[in-house]
Amino acid sequence: MNLHEYAGETLKKIRAQKPLIHNITNYVVMNYTANALLACGASPVMAHAYNEVREMVGIANALVINIGTLEEEWIRSMIIAASEANKKGIPIILDPVGVGATNFRTTAALRILRAAKISVIRGNASEILALTDSHSQTKGVDSQHGVDEATDVALELSLRYNAVVAVTGATDVITDGNATIKVSNGHSLMSYVTGTGCTATALIGTFCAVESDYLKSAASALAYFGIAGELAAKEAIAPGSFMIALLDKLYSITPVELEQYAKFAI
Amino acid sequence: MNLHEYAGETLKKIRAQKPLIHNITNYVVMNYTANALLACGASPVMAHAYNEVREMVGIANALVINIGTLEEEWIRSMIIAASEANKKGIPIILDPVGVGATNFRTTAALRILRAAKISVIRGNASEILALTDSHSQTKGVDSQHGVDEATDVALELSLRYNAVVAVTGATDVITDGNATIKVSNGHSLMSYVTGTGCTATALIGTFCAVESDYLKSAASALAYFGIAGELAAKEAIAPGSFMIALLDKLYSITPVELEQYAKFAI
Amino acid sequence: MNLHEYAGETLKKIRAQKPLIHNITNYVVMNYTANALLACGASPVMAHAYNEVREMVGIANALVINIGTLEEEWIRSMIIAASEANKKGIPIILDPVGVGATNFRTTAALRILRAAKISVIRGNASEILALTDSHSQTKGVDSQHGVDEATDVALELSLRYNAVVAVTGATDVITDGNATIKVSNGHSLMSYVTGTGCTATALIGTFCAVESDYLKSAASALAYFGIAGELAAKEAIAPGSFMIALLDKLYSITPVELEQYAKFAI
Repeated sequence: MNLHEYAGETLKKIRAQKPLIHNITNYVVMNYTANALLACGASPVMAHAYNEVREMVGIANALVINIGTLEEEWIRSMIIAASEANKKGIPIILDPVGVGATNFRTTAALRILRAAKISVIRGNASEILALTDSHSQTKGVDSQHGVDEATDVALELSLRYNAVVAVTGATDVITDGNATIKVSNGHSLMSYVTGTGCTATALIGTFCAVESDYLKSAASALAYFGIAGELAAKEAIAPGSFMIALLDKLYSITPVELEQYAKFAI
Repeated sequence: MNLHEYAGETLKKIRAQKPLIHNITNYVVMNYTANALLACGASPVMAHAYNEVREMVGIANALVINIGTLEEEWIRSMIIAASEANKKGIPIILDPVGVGATNFRTTAALRILRAAKISVIRGNASEILALTDSHSQTKGVDSQHGVDEATDVALELSLRYNAVVAVTGATDVITDGNATIKVSNGHSLMSYVTGTGCTATALIGTFCAVESDYLKSAASALAYFGIAGELAAKEAIAPGSFMIALLDKLYSITPVELEQYAKFAI
Repeated sequence: MNLHEYAGETLKKIRAQKPLIHNITNYVVMNYTANALLACGASPVMAHAYNEVREMVGIANALVINIGTLEEEWIRSMIIAASEANKKGIPIILDPVGVGATNFRTTAALRILRAAKISVIRGNASEILALTDSHSQTKGVDSQHGVDEATDVALELSLRYNAVVAVTGATDVITDGNATIKVSNGHSLMSYVTGTGCTATALIGTFCAVESDYLKSAASALAYFGIAGELAAKEAIAPGSFMIALLDKLYSITPVELEQYAKFAI
């Protein structure tokens, strides 16, 4: 089965199995993320209290951790949930939002990476760079670096944490430290919708929930999301209507279309 | 005045009186809930700090409590607010989101139910079942049980807490332990929009805020919301554009249309 | 350069410089605010933890403080962030959401106003009145007073805190205690979208981030937002589709259109 077929089959599985995706994520994107996961065919749940995350992981098929709008208490919950996810053997996807912008976020991301085995780390080039070199400074949550520039860093981070690393940008680079896949789907309007990065991360969690080749699942999820962006941009030329069309496309894209439109390079 | 007329008259009252609905609800749905209440004609306010909920209840016409994305501190505020609402005599609507999924949520819902007299409890069949039999396990926030299966449980719960119980699904069942109303409005796309259950609960709060027959008000609110879903589905065939059309319809439905399209069975 | 030209030039600068706007705002509007700022051309970041706000202010071009869905811990962060913003010399915009509705909110707003030099305060007439006369009572987050009635109060507040005060309503009144500008752009559907007031405040922060005449920047931002509402209402007649069209228009309005359509009165 080639990568295109893998992507299509995985989307088919998601819609058949409706995996439960447990998100501990930021306030800004909770609503959009939940809607994106529903549109994809998954079943999202958001829960962050330290006294319930262990049980919630217990019924989940993947755990998505996102450190936007972070506070101390949440890190505690993230680590409890991540430990439980490791114990149970479900994938954990980490989105180190804004890492490098503040010491608090950088430290939090590193604490989580040390406390549990993370399956996939997804960030923009600045964030991935900040995780590798903690002296780097990010401008808020936006990326200032090209994806090409970040490929080496992704490889280094991947080897350091034995995790799949996905650097998203005009071209997405996904590596497990050994093989590398590039995905060139997507549309520039996606950067005008808040939380598209966070949504990409949650979709990676969904694809990893039903198929355990995390490198291929991450690449498939990013192709799927990018294609949704391309199709949405055919109907909408400004960010408000685009973000709604994007949800529509996540719902309407068929496994066959995903196979057909995915732009992978290995 | 029959139930259809009651529904229309109540919607008319909402638009004339613009009742203030105090929501202590979850992060995922706050924005959508507020927009739905505005579209209906109500005036929403979200406030959860223990040191202001009593005062906020003091100016509110209904209190909506929703335990999604719960944490310990919020339960304290919910109980303070609920006690004040009881003292003041305004209706309290409880949405036990995801109850049964974790012990924390089940315990929280039961604590609230014991601390105050709740007017209406709205949940899907799994949630209502979990409240009646605390050994039942929910898969996240989705329902695995049919509504018919849950009618007996709704009756039992209604009698136990002397509350109106609304079980929503393809057909909604609303009972006060004595009379039972079924509502068969709605559309399958509603389950692809996060927080439609929570929105239904907040709309029940709005209808109960202006008319005190809580059984009829809850049924009217669910018919109104279901009709909005039916009309939205005529304009949108995927969840993103559907969720926007749903807000539009909540705004544009007239009292006469509500009377005309409501599908009640007694 | 007249006020119309100032408005157009400032929008041009925003799109060229993409200022980073640090928002400590309420849960209800975080997503919509972030999308509005992106559509305008700014780079939004939401961060509220007391142990990172100082650093985040350090890389920001403006700080927006909004007290909706407030709790004690957040006030601490707001004051730390505001002090740092003063030290750094970037503008601070305060949105006293629902002030007057509860003693907690009124006290919080006054604490912030005493702890730091605020550049612009934006509220509806009730909120501005409640800040001036702490015995006034607001009904939730809606305004019960006309803008004309509030102009005197705005002047008083402006002089008391040496801040620009913007009272928004059918006609917006902006004063620095000396000069006063009225803006009559806007559309009635804006009041059916939750968080339009909060969005106005964040846009004021964006205009103030790139041009330091805060009186003119605040007026320019309100004209820009009002024009977006007027244009959106030509495409959408109900609040769901309107709120999406509003984001589209924030993105598509050109500096020339802003100059052309702004309705200023001095």
